[in-house]
Amino acid sequence: MRVDGREQLQLRPIHIETNYLKHPEGSVLISVGDTKVICTASIDERVPPFMRGEGKGWITAEYSMLPRATEQRNIREAAKGKISGRTMEIQRLIGRALRAVVDLEAIGERTIWLDCDVIQADGGTRTASITGAFVAMAIALDKISKSKKLASYPIKDFLAATSVGILENKEVVVDLNYVEDSKALVDMNVVMIGDGEFVELQGTGEEATFSYNELQELLRSAQEGLAAIFEMQKEALGEEITNKINTRKK
Amino acid sequence: MRVDGREQLQLRPIHIETNYLKHPEGSVLISVGDTKVICTASIDERVPPFMRGEGKGWITAEYSMLPRATEQRNIREAAKGKISGRTMEIQRLIGRALRAVVDLEAIGERTIWLDCDVIQADGGTRTASITGAFVAMAIALDKISKSKKLASYPIKDFLAATSVGILENKEVVVDLNYVEDSKALVDMNVVMIGDGEFVELQGTGEEATFSYNELQELLRSAQEGLAAIFEMQKEALGEEITNKINTRKK
Amino acid sequence: MRVDGREQLQLRPIHIETNYLKHPEGSVLISVGDTKVICTASIDERVPPFMRGEGKGWITAEYSMLPRATEQRNIREAAKGKISGRTMEIQRLIGRALRAVVDLEAIGERTIWLDCDVIQADGGTRTASITGAFVAMAIALDKISKSKKLASYPIKDFLAATSVGILENKEVVVDLNYVEDSKALVDMNVVMIGDGEFVELQGTGEEATFSYNELQELLRSAQEGLAAIFEMQKEALGEEITNKINTRKK
Amino acid sequence: MRVDGREQLQLRPIHIETNYLKHPEGSVLISVGDTKVICTASIDERVPPFMRGEGKGWITAEYSMLPRATEQRNIREAAKGKISGRTMEIQRLIGRALRAVVDLEAIGERTIWLDCDVIQADGGTRTASITGAFVAMAIALDKISKSKKLASYPIKDFLAATSVGILENKEVVVDLNYVEDSKALVDMNVVMIGDGEFVELQGTGEEATFSYNELQELLRSAQEGLAAIFEMQKEALGEEITNKINTRKK
Amino acid sequence: MRVDGREQLQLRPIHIETNYLKHPEGSVLISVGDTKVICTASIDERVPPFMRGEGKGWITAEYSMLPRATEQRNIREAAKGKISGRTMEIQRLIGRALRAVVDLEAIGERTIWLDCDVIQADGGTRTASITGAFVAMAIALDKISKSKKLASYPIKDFLAATSVGILENKEVVVDLNYVEDSKALVDMNVVMIGDGEFVELQGTGEEATFSYNELQELLRSAQEGLAAIFEMQKEALGEEITNKINTRKK
Amino acid sequence: MRVDGREQLQLRPIHIETNYLKHPEGSVLISVGDTKVICTASIDERVPPFMRGEGKGWITAEYSMLPRATEQRNIREAAKGKISGRTMEIQRLIGRALRAVVDLEAIGERTIWLDCDVIQADGGTRTASITGAFVAMAIALDKISKSKKLASYPIKDFLAATSVGILENKEVVVDLNYVEDSKALVDMNVVMIGDGEFVELQGTGEEATFSYNELQELLRSAQEGLAAIFEMQKEALGEEITNKINTRKK
Repeated sequence: MRVDGREQLQLRPIHIETNYLKHPEGSVLISVGDTKVICTASIDERVPPFMRGEGKGWITAEYSMLPRATEQRNIREAAKGKISGRTMEIQRLIGRALRAVVDLEAIGERTIWLDCDVIQADGGTRTASITGAFVAMAIALDKISKSKKLASYPIKDFLAATSVGILENKEVVVDLNYVEDSKALVDMNVVMIGDGEFVELQGTGEEATFSYNELQELLRSAQEGLAAIFEMQKEALGEEITNKINTRKK
Repeated sequence: MRVDGREQLQLRPIHIETNYLKHPEGSVLISVGDTKVICTASIDERVPPFMRGEGKGWITAEYSMLPRATEQRNIREAAKGKISGRTMEIQRLIGRALRAVVDLEAIGERTIWLDCDVIQADGGTRTASITGAFVAMAIALDKISKSKKLASYPIKDFLAATSVGILENKEVVVDLNYVEDSKALVDMNVVMIGDGEFVELQGTGEEATFSYNELQELLRSAQEGLAAIFEMQKEALGEEITNKINTRKK
Repeated sequence: MRVDGREQLQLRPIHIETNYLKHPEGSVLISVGDTKVICTASIDERVPPFMRGEGKGWITAEYSMLPRATEQRNIREAAKGKISGRTMEIQRLIGRALRAVVDLEAIGERTIWLDCDVIQADGGTRTASITGAFVAMAIALDKISKSKKLASYPIKDFLAATSVGILENKEVVVDLNYVEDSKALVDMNVVMIGDGEFVELQGTGEEATFSYNELQELLRSAQEGLAAIFEMQKEALGEEITNKINTRKK
Repeated sequence: MRVDGREQLQLRPIHIETNYLKHPEGSVLISVGDTKVICTASIDERVPPFMRGEGKGWITAEYSMLPRATEQRNIREAAKGKISGRTMEIQRLIGRALRAVVDLEAIGERTIWLDCDVIQADGGTRTASITGAFVAMAIALDKISKSKKLASYPIKDFLAATSVGILENKEVVVDLNYVEDSKALVDMNVVMIGDGEFVELQGTGEEATFSYNELQELLRSAQEGLAAIFEMQKEALGEEITNKINTRKK
Repeated sequence: MRVDGREQLQLRPIHIETNYLKHPEGSVLISVGDTKVICTASIDERVPPFMRGEGKGWITAEYSMLPRATEQRNIREAAKGKISGRTMEIQRLIGRALRAVVDLEAIGERTIWLDCDVIQADGGTRTASITGAFVAMAIALDKISKSKKLASYPIKDFLAATSVGILENKEVVVDLNYVEDSKALVDMNVVMIGDGEFVELQGTGEEATFSYNELQELLRSAQEGLAAIFEMQKEALGEEITNKINTRKK
Repeated sequence: MRVDGREQLQLRPIHIETNYLKHPEGSVLISVGDTKVICTASIDERVPPFMRGEGKGWITAEYSMLPRATEQRNIREAAKGKISGRTMEIQRLIGRALRAVVDLEAIGERTIWLDCDVIQADGGTRTASITGAFVAMAIALDKISKSKKLASYPIKDFLAATSVGILENKEVVVDLNYVEDSKALVDMNVVMIGDGEFVELQGTGEEATFSYNELQELLRSAQEGLAAIFEMQKEALGEEITNKINTRKK
């Protein structure tokens, strides 16, 4: 039994509230247990200078935490005047992951900005951000596909992420909370698309290592957890968008 | 009739959800119409270096907006690497205002950090921040007063803020929304304590001016609006804290 | 009697030396008691990018102190690599105030840069900056009005500022020096145009509050002090420019 | 056949020149094909503030490229005034990887700084940095173990890294050069210890995905390549240090 | 005849107004032709961390220009958030030069901050800064020598600087103004002490070179100009301080 | 006899390895004793904005040290977020020096970036950088002169630099190493062109001074050392480029 009473492969409760904010083209408040993230998707009718004239779109992400999202108050990165390595790593990961399921040609010369702002943190903020940002992005891209003539539906598949890890007692668990995460021997983030292929795999043994067999068990656990998360995304997005994505996949 | 159907001296609907987040000692989600701000109060058991050994506490505030709190996405200040003049002005105002109602000797050598993060903006974000931050701070200070032996109850009075202004049609209105604010001839923020005295008055005619008579009408309107806001703060804080503050005032 | 022997409503001696520097289009050295500020007005034949093509001009201000303008040496903001909140607040105030009396359409697509550099500080540096910057700006704008065909004379009225405050002994005084300012219960900066209307009002009770009656006494005192300051501006600018401004006002 | 004539699982030529520089406690010039990195290990007889008094050491890494290490000249990060996300990600990876094979208790309250400066880049700079930094660090730690009384030999195992990827023609290859890397469908960095366990796995499909079967082939290829790299590290370090590490492993 | 009517070896008029400001321990306004610099010397009763406990003092300088000291307005370095290479070079030069004539042991563990703020620029701002800063520093050090028991008088000799150059017409001139400086083939700054020895020599041929014979003529011209400048320093400092310095020299 | 056994006017061994790196248009690894610098010349087919349309080229230099080029590890300037005054001074010197021997009209609207990265430091890094950068630049410019039709050969003469100084024992020496440099009374850097004229002269007495006679001895020593350095540059560049430069000189 885990610290919060869950079984090894049991996810925390997940809620995805769509259209949470008034201004963004797409927005959700996602909660994964006590981790809560506001994800917004903003459409910018330009691409960055290095991509102009190529007829393709761009997806980019930013990530931040409120100072008191955590047990101890954190100094704001704006106050420090620079973004930490951890933040950069996470926002690069989110952007890269989401680009994997978008047809950049189809969206034309537009940028989709994904902003993931953690308002409460209890482990798994980067995977919750990816899962939530996908939903916010899908809402925004669906709006574009309705108002502009796109060559094809721009979302190629579902995309979600979760964490898996090996605890001190050697048990493999899924969706680690903060207490588990800070003591885990191995921590792995898995980003997957709806058809079960990997987009990104980041496994780390901080002052520890893991074997090939352990890796296999970690991946199987992630796959099982992600199957459940895809269902919640479909429910949040509703039948119409879900069908369009499924049609595009074929 | 105003752009959103209100009468001249009518406030927008205000909601204050207390204990909105899990980690901070005090927290609220305040909404004033479509303006929504997460206000948290964090207790730090130290004071800044320049105050050490004086036996007094300190109150300081930070303010930020999510990039997509607004109609157009804003670049994050962390990404720009510096805080704008507007943000600095607002966070200095919030801190100064809240210090006016706290007995800094009573709280001892502690810092209260007030973080005001606007998640949705529709005008009046700085006044909503002050009104909400007061409630978050009162909850946190009440916790200190219960767990530590303080010389006296540290909150000297209620504190709230609202905006008043003169619209293009020369009408004086209270609690301006974004559309009104961006066209107003005169914009004034008024911070007041529960007994009706002023803490801060900031009136500005951007490319316009105002007369002594207009000033008087602005102040009367602010006073009326603030009376209603104090009632909402009392309701949010509950009877026990309200009574303690009222007792201390006598 | 005040700390420097003045009466409650007595200003410190004010001197305005025009054309103090060789290069700027307008420049003054203003001294208000021991507070000395070099104010320059520079004409830039462009407007900032966000205003291009609108046919209007722009006024912007910067404020700084020499490191040893004060009793204790201050670290330069250039050395710290960032501008303090206090500086930003002051330069925003100066710019906003001066825009209130300039016909931005009349000056055409030009920017007037106002630089206020405090070489000696003894309280009231921001109000001395506004009073001095107006004179420097008027000199520069008058040059433009002579050399270019403007649709109308660009200065709509005189503009000056002073401080008023409530001392620890509850007396209302005008034009506070540093010693008074650092102990005052209430500090208020008042920016006014020649015809007696307000442009900006910033009243602050740092760890104190003020009543409606006190506010009225503060404003009356400010008005009296400013009447004297306008006369000194007129003397500094000379009859010709004074007449042009007065003619434009009608 | 690959673009440079190699077979799928063939590494580029690797050379490790030890004691390349005069001042550092450990240093190497590692070349992997045309990729050349100077790796130095510096001993600092202090730990960062957050670790003081814990009786443990710390390992941290920094990574940089000469401006003309690449085909096109890059702007220096010092000139830009900030470190890019890519650099931060890489230096965090290097530090984390090397901490996995060091007994931090054994080294006592010391910091080992690993500096990896790429003087010529042709793909695989981060994996070459890890492989080279391990050798530089081992030389430095061996010096400490000789001059100070350590509780045990501080290096727990060998550590090296390589890249594997899936090319556009779907072939799995090892040790990608720049041309291959920039077109690969999938790119994976694998950090492993001498006994074959994983320390870090970072697999990314930029605008592509990979299946479970492909993952297995990638990992097998990495394992084969790394076996050869461990032999070169042993040769570079010499018999004495190699034996000490092997003894400690048992 | 030169552009402003001077002869080859004729200096511009020099004025040194001592005790120009109220707060600093030493201050002057120096004008060399149209170049005007406020130089202040501030005493700080501490030394920088790297010098603590050595029983010696430190001299350090900062240099800046008002934005409109020049023909075209310059962006403030505080606004840019960093100090230019030119500024750094100049302030390093000023500090180094002044340290050459101060007995750092004699002044004890104190720092003298020299601030040179150019309010009007017409060439030669760095040499005017050195000449003026010496006077400001001498006033401040003399105060220390009166109020504290120093082992010996801390000023070892006079110190001044001037520029020499070779104009386009191949003439060697002294004390170049801005117009001359911007077209000169060779520009040389010479810092000298009262007994005629060099402290610093910086000669530069921007897109030009100079021969050994030309160098000798430049140095002779500098020496002649500096002899006159030393006399003005003595006059500004007065007989008492001049005598103390002369006594110390013997 | 000097600390490393050299005679007063004896240079350290100098090696210049040309075409050290693969990507840059020109590159060398220069070693002067234990000082080692990688110098690269990169051709950029644009000039900076302030020079566009003038039909001239530009030469600019950057300088950096690896963190462990020195006895004690230095913090990277990229990590500090700003470039030190020392670095700026050096890179301005290198750029200025090299521009003295290039026909900027002849190279057309191109920028040559010279990057000098010190990988091992033992005194004289700035003079080694100039000597090495000249060779790298000559290789790059010779490539341009072969591939593009230039109006004339762009290199006007050879250029090299060395240091001279006065040691504590009053001896004048050439090419100071780090130990000598850190204790020298006077330190002078001399940049000269092949025909014996000076480009730059920077002599500094840190807490010391030097006489006219000493200056003459320093310059004679520098001249002698530089004559030998020019021979090594010619050997490194080979007969063809050497002849072209000599032809252009006539």
